[in-house]
Amino acid sequence: MMNVPLTISSMLERAENFFPKKGVVSRTLSKTHRLNYKEIGERTRRLASSLERLGIKEGDKVATFAWNQHRHLETYFAVPSLGAVLHMVNIRLSEEHISYIINHANDRILLIDEDLLPIIESVKDELKTVEAFILMTDQEELPETTLEPLYSYEDLINQGDKDFQFRKDIDENTPAGMCYTSATTGNPKGVLYSHRALTLHSMMLGMADTLALSESDVCMPLVPMFHVNAWGLPYASAWYGTQLVLPGPNFTPEVITELIENEKVTITAGVPTIWLGVLNLLEKEKREMSSLRAVICGGSAAPMSMIKKYEEDYGIPFMHAYGMTETTPIVALSRIKSYQQELSNEEKLEIRSKQGLFVPGVEMKIVNEQGPVEWDGKDMGELLLRGNWIADSYFEDDRTIDTFKDGWLHTGDIATIDEEGTLKLVDRTKDLIKSGGEWISSVDLENALMAHEGVFEAAVVAVPSEKWLERPVACVVLKPEYKDKVTEKDIIEFLTPKFAKWWLPDKVLFIDEIPKTTVGKFLKRELRSQLEEKMSVS
Amino acid sequence: MMNVPLTISSMLERAENFFPKKGVVSRTLSKTHRLNYKEIGERTRRLASSLERLGIKEGDKVATFAWNQHRHLETYFAVPSLGAVLHMVNIRLSEEHISYIINHANDRILLIDEDLLPIIESVKDELKTVEAFILMTDQEELPETTLEPLYSYEDLINQGDKDFQFRKDIDENTPAGMCYTSATTGNPKGVLYSHRALTLHSMMLGMADTLALSESDVCMPLVPMFHVNAWGLPYASAWYGTQLVLPGPNFTPEVITELIENEKVTITAGVPTIWLGVLNLLEKEKREMSSLRAVICGGSAAPMSMIKKYEEDYGIPFMHAYGMTETTPIVALSRIKSYQQELSNEEKLEIRSKQGLFVPGVEMKIVNEQGPVEWDGKDMGELLLRGNWIADSYFEDDRTIDTFKDGWLHTGDIATIDEEGTLKLVDRTKDLIKSGGEWISSVDLENALMAHEGVFEAAVVAVPSEKWLERPVACVVLKPEYKDKVTEKDIIEFLTPKFAKWWLPDKVLFIDEIPKTTVGKFLKRELRSQLEEKMSVS
Repeated sequence: MMNVPLTISSMLERAENFFPKKGVVSRTLSKTHRLNYKEIGERTRRLASSLERLGIKEGDKVATFAWNQHRHLETYFAVPSLGAVLHMVNIRLSEEHISYIINHANDRILLIDEDLLPIIESVKDELKTVEAFILMTDQEELPETTLEPLYSYEDLINQGDKDFQFRKDIDENTPAGMCYTSATTGNPKGVLYSHRALTLHSMMLGMADTLALSESDVCMPLVPMFHVNAWGLPYASAWYGTQLVLPGPNFTPEVITELIENEKVTITAGVPTIWLGVLNLLEKEKREMSSLRAVICGGSAAPMSMIKKYEEDYGIPFMHAYGMTETTPIVALSRIKSYQQELSNEEKLEIRSKQGLFVPGVEMKIVNEQGPVEWDGKDMGELLLRGNWIADSYFEDDRTIDTFKDGWLHTGDIATIDEEGTLKLVDRTKDLIKSGGEWISSVDLENALMAHEGVFEAAVVAVPSEKWLERPVACVVLKPEYKDKVTEKDIIEFLTPKFAKWWLPDKVLFIDEIPKTTVGKFLKRELRSQLEEKMSVS
Repeated sequence: MMNVPLTISSMLERAENFFPKKGVVSRTLSKTHRLNYKEIGERTRRLASSLERLGIKEGDKVATFAWNQHRHLETYFAVPSLGAVLHMVNIRLSEEHISYIINHANDRILLIDEDLLPIIESVKDELKTVEAFILMTDQEELPETTLEPLYSYEDLINQGDKDFQFRKDIDENTPAGMCYTSATTGNPKGVLYSHRALTLHSMMLGMADTLALSESDVCMPLVPMFHVNAWGLPYASAWYGTQLVLPGPNFTPEVITELIENEKVTITAGVPTIWLGVLNLLEKEKREMSSLRAVICGGSAAPMSMIKKYEEDYGIPFMHAYGMTETTPIVALSRIKSYQQELSNEEKLEIRSKQGLFVPGVEMKIVNEQGPVEWDGKDMGELLLRGNWIADSYFEDDRTIDTFKDGWLHTGDIATIDEEGTLKLVDRTKDLIKSGGEWISSVDLENALMAHEGVFEAAVVAVPSEKWLERPVACVVLKPEYKDKVTEKDIIEFLTPKFAKWWLPDKVLFIDEIPKTTVGKFLKRELRSQLEEKMSVS
């Protein structure tokens, strides 16, 4: 058999050749752009040739600091097709971390969305490796800025070669992309994605039993393109000729629902916080959501009560995805097996609220101190992963040895698996509550709390206990209309029938907001330190 | 990223772990077997350990001479998991070719279906490399035979180790399977399939825009397991936990429709001859076919009139597939793009009757003496292919240089491609009729002929012409009830409105049967020599 390298550029070439009538809807600051894949392909070739002229060569890093828009999409293909690496910088990091990761990755060029320019201007003196900046803007004139040299993206497109040939001889194990994941302590850790990993991950996203991404879909990734390749959706969409909708900067629930209505979006993906916001809107105003065949939710566990509302109240199929920056990211999806279709709606919802089945191409085991766990849905252990889109190290980082051992990624996620092979995340290793030698899942308690009609959000964390080592405390954000109307006693009574007595939180604190990470996950470390202050004061 | 070899055994392991309730229905000579994937997995491990005990090691060839049944399926996984190569011998070859390919492949062990034993007995003196025979039978006692040593398959299963560990360290480019394709002249040519090719091909079969093979399917490959890996369906089905129905020896249209009814088959695949036979049955008797979501037809072009009948008269979705022994095999499928759904039924049928869109992972070009053809649906050229499941050579065969040139497989198929990228096969290079410097497609004429109500089958071949170099002659098989009721003049008049005058056959011959290859394709070489006799007599 031939051994043809699995490369990023071949995905775009398929779109150019076979789907020139399909393309991208892109919302930027000033307008909505519509480009077909032939145009995207031509612009990508022009961009690649200009980057090459600026000196970018194999192994170099090119960084983006941008929203989900068509120019960002073009960098997704142009940079790897030169054998270079696209570093998608998380725009929500602290300034300290932004300059750290750009320096650490050794980025030579930085492409910036116009409204994000001030952030880069304020860190520019810290940047040691960047030789040139490129501004992604619809404006013809470049703004006044302290950055230099600063090129106009569209000028580079105009000056580029539309017939530029993508490299065909790239080894498929060459890095194509890069993202950093925030660490519990210290600086973010970098993950390199190879051409092979991104291509195989894209094949997987098209499978009928995963996302079933198809030419007939209209796909809107709300998950940022600076966060784990927007879950791989831009690559797979181009490959399959799927229409892409890129929502641009600062989108709100209003913008999201408007794009779904206008563009007839069939599949969209984002973190639970986004879906909570959209749900709030839907509860107030009627929107036409009937084009949606799947809402993909990942990043952290979506509460069952939310899944139920989407499915039952609005008829919107909701699918849980599980993955992490180190896994490209998708490794599991909550799908119902054919013979489970006969179960009751409640039972199916129960399955759908779990992280689901491992996708083809990923190997897993769940282990605790006693070895591999029983597949009984109860025995808890740490999830270990292996596969072609699973990282084997952090980029030039000593912390590699803590996470990658014996050929397996140690996810730090505590999970159970049942006899059907359904994954259920119980907690992060560090968030698990170890009470009197037993484990309590903060996630299970949170899901139960969020099913209470008055609760908007809830997080459960461990506080030190002399007797039990650790005990759970619940931090609850009430919906505005329930403020001061729900008591600690109400909450505990609500939980009591659902859990063993020793699982019940020792305390329920009502707070205004749960601190979150830059990608919308609960920041429990921060919550614990707030709590320590509060508890020591009280 | 990790680089984990893409290997056959990981597909079966997923079935064992995640789909132990799904499995295989297997029809053998004596009964219908039902085994789940846990049992298939255990039996495969036992078989692999027994083969290893018999001396099979990495690189060795193990051959099968068998129908589509569960034991054949077990060899599909057991042999490659030892690093050995499964040679699936085409049982319909001549005795001369059977012994040639077994010797040429250097097969050490031969597994035989019980009813096929006499064929092997009669060639046994020609076999130079086979050291042991294994009989696949439901019977406890082995029959009297001249083959020796002869082992019982089930004895080897019983003696095997159910906890045998599949090898994890196999290089993904290692050959896993092997089939021979018949040549126009001379001996068959061998094609080796690597673990990488078979795995990537299996990923492709699961894509929503290809076959969308899913856990929820019940898949019945009618295409023989000795013919290009049964189009990859056994591998992909196990991987996805898809229920498999294996129809066993000598199945008839009655058996096929009964299995579809009883097992609620959702997807099935075979050559046009099979579907013509089933259609004949359906026209006589009512059958419950509503479980079918796709009939996959490949091997040679299905006439549009047949596709139309399946779709319109019986509501059975019909999908054209294109591929060959050298391509693992699937490279194109006739699917309608989303925006083509608005076309009329006739226009959609027209698209469905073509070979369709190239699947993700395959590169193509169509070239003639002037270079690449226009994508206008008219310009004809030879189809060239490149990709990870495309062969790069024939196994130890000098004819490699005729077919594999400059990194491309030269298919020998003459095709057109339209502006949507839809492939249409026009002819085999050798069957194309070159009349007065222009090309006439025998396939187009055949399709038109088969749309005539009285025509059962038709083939068009070139006969030498002094003036025009070549001219087309049509060989027509009438349906029994139309015998002697349709004349040459009727046929020519039927064709006249559809073609340029110089395309019309010079002669229409009514014959009893069109000679076919072992896999049901028209054997035009044979037809031409029959014709030469006839024409020289007349």
